[in-house]
Amino acid sequence: MNVNIRGQIRHYRTVTFDAKQNQVLLIEQRLLPHEFKIVATGDFRETARAIKDMVVRGAGAIGATAAYGLAQGARALRGRDPKKFSAHVEGVFQTLRAARPTAVDPVNAMNGLREIMRGGETVEEQQALALAGAEEFANEDVRHCQELGEHGARLIRNGMKVLTHCNAGWLAFVDVGSATAPMYAAQAQGKKFHVFCDETRPRSQGATLTAWELAEQGISHQIIADNAAGHLMQRGEIDMVIVGSDRTLGRTGEVANKIGTYTKAVLAARHKIPFYVAIPLSTIDWNLKSGFDIPIEERHESEVLGAWGVGQNSKSARNSYVRVGNPGSRARNPGFDVTPAELITGIITPAGIFKPRKLWARRKELGFEKEKDGKE
Amino acid sequence: MNVNIRGQIRHYRTVTFDAKQNQVLLIEQRLLPHEFKIVATGDFRETARAIKDMVVRGAGAIGATAAYGLAQGARALRGRDPKKFSAHVEGVFQTLRAARPTAVDPVNAMNGLREIMRGGETVEEQQALALAGAEEFANEDVRHCQELGEHGARLIRNGMKVLTHCNAGWLAFVDVGSATAPMYAAQAQGKKFHVFCDETRPRSQGATLTAWELAEQGISHQIIADNAAGHLMQRGEIDMVIVGSDRTLGRTGEVANKIGTYTKAVLAARHKIPFYVAIPLSTIDWNLKSGFDIPIEERHESEVLGAWGVGQNSKSARNSYVRVGNPGSRARNPGFDVTPAELITGIITPAGIFKPRKLWARRKELGFEKEKDGKE
Repeated sequence: MNVNIRGQIRHYRTVTFDAKQNQVLLIEQRLLPHEFKIVATGDFRETARAIKDMVVRGAGAIGATAAYGLAQGARALRGRDPKKFSAHVEGVFQTLRAARPTAVDPVNAMNGLREIMRGGETVEEQQALALAGAEEFANEDVRHCQELGEHGARLIRNGMKVLTHCNAGWLAFVDVGSATAPMYAAQAQGKKFHVFCDETRPRSQGATLTAWELAEQGISHQIIADNAAGHLMQRGEIDMVIVGSDRTLGRTGEVANKIGTYTKAVLAARHKIPFYVAIPLSTIDWNLKSGFDIPIEERHESEVLGAWGVGQNSKSARNSYVRVGNPGSRARNPGFDVTPAELITGIITPAGIFKPRKLWARRKELGFEKEKDGKE
Repeated sequence: MNVNIRGQIRHYRTVTFDAKQNQVLLIEQRLLPHEFKIVATGDFRETARAIKDMVVRGAGAIGATAAYGLAQGARALRGRDPKKFSAHVEGVFQTLRAARPTAVDPVNAMNGLREIMRGGETVEEQQALALAGAEEFANEDVRHCQELGEHGARLIRNGMKVLTHCNAGWLAFVDVGSATAPMYAAQAQGKKFHVFCDETRPRSQGATLTAWELAEQGISHQIIADNAAGHLMQRGEIDMVIVGSDRTLGRTGEVANKIGTYTKAVLAARHKIPFYVAIPLSTIDWNLKSGFDIPIEERHESEVLGAWGVGQNSKSARNSYVRVGNPGSRARNPGFDVTPAELITGIITPAGIFKPRKLWARRKELGFEKEKDGKE
């Protein structure tokens, strides 16, 4: 999406590839929103480190970064022996996979890419296919986000006030984003609307990343404390909620997303405000039978006990950690929560908008065909 | 309540008076939770500045500070001329009132004190009554908090997990507090329970002041992000909620309190978790007919856009402000919200626990007798 660099508006993707230099180019997300910088990783090990150190984060974005990293590693080999090449690619794969061991997107992306590479016989052919495949993976991520954005944009009317939580924006994908995609599409259609960004403690992704995205895009918005949405809904100041999802259960329509999402869904239901979840199809889990089976990651208490910010007299734009809470106290820090289907008005996907409990019945349309599971 | 000073546990009040030195002694709340320090104000002007600069905050605490400040000012006059004395006291009153112009507690406290002083004839007599009256005001604040604590402690059973929001603790009163009073009383009865402290963005009073109080008191507790309570309720980890109130409507049972309180009440109702509000009688407003008539203060956006904390390499214990949110974004910052009576299980007062909609019928019991308003 657009970034304003000293008055000049340029288009960027979160992750791109320089084929000539064989480098992966990434927006250094740890510096945002205080500084915008593109970093280039010179080899696949540096790319793996960038994923590990969270230079890049977000399911779609790390998937594409791993795909590019695999192509980068494959293309770096000089020899022409297919066996040696194959062993080398396996090593690249393992290094990139180990960067975020619990994430599923990098593995899926790289497995898809290796499948494509098998279409080539010589090392040269396979290297060319790796590059083309990684580019196609990134382009498909963008296309899916654009498609869900077109569907979602129909929901946004002129003058609306839309609430979002956390960052399901273009920084979490290759471009466009999920929860933000309907906003960007509606803006392109000339619609005027206002977005409230939940701060989203403890990591404040709403106040930092989503607010930065919307500001660069020129979309009217305000940051609010996570405590404030209930009051604004009570006073009629919020017309719709759109959030992303880390995992959506295809069988039940339950949605796991950043901690605090469930609270907003409960508030929206009380005030009869539509509550939408925007997702690329890759986040649908067709196996789990209950939201209570989704493991909820307990993250480190330091996130709750402090905050990351820039001091007023600081010369550096880099965030630093400050302790906020009482030094003698501990914290609980569940990272995600689960919103039941009954609180969700609709799931916005690249294939259209669905009632959460209808995902399973429409699973073929949504690209899931599991022959063994014939009963519906 | 108790404070642990280098291993020695001592009892403190938030505000006390040194009659010999004619000084008001205050816990410097701006340094908490990182440093515990008592400051002495040498004259009533310094006392007014301490209120203005929020060395001391919280309705009960600033009421008592103003009462002591009036006594301090009255006792400082050397002359024996009752007329000059009266004019001097009026000046002291105005200076202390101007320190927090919208707060009602200092004015009520000082008016009560001036009424008591009228019982004396000579300047000397009036000065003695001022001191005795201020001490009695402070003692009554403590007594009321203790009484509501005794009533509320009946609700806390062994093994319970209790959620509280913001700081309605002893730091906001002379001692004991409102929402914390049932906890301290239950602890004194030997009950074991666990408290979750909502961080309470944007000012983080839960993570700083309430967590500090509970830690000093040795009560088991954890800080949570404001986003986390919904998830914990969903998983059966919260048994009860107790909060304070800035204004409670006697006619409707609606409660105005720190932003985010309403959200917790909505969540508690969904999960059938008892939601209690603990208040001294002085916060009941018998006049307003609807919660929508309560003006909701919009505070400065910098509170939402940043946080106050201590850097990891900082040599100073004093909090400093860091910018968290995107520098190009603005914020909305409503300071309070209104919780309707239907979501409140009970109002815990020094006179007992009442259903919120029964306050008006029991108003005589609660010390409100307005002759003009005969109809019920």
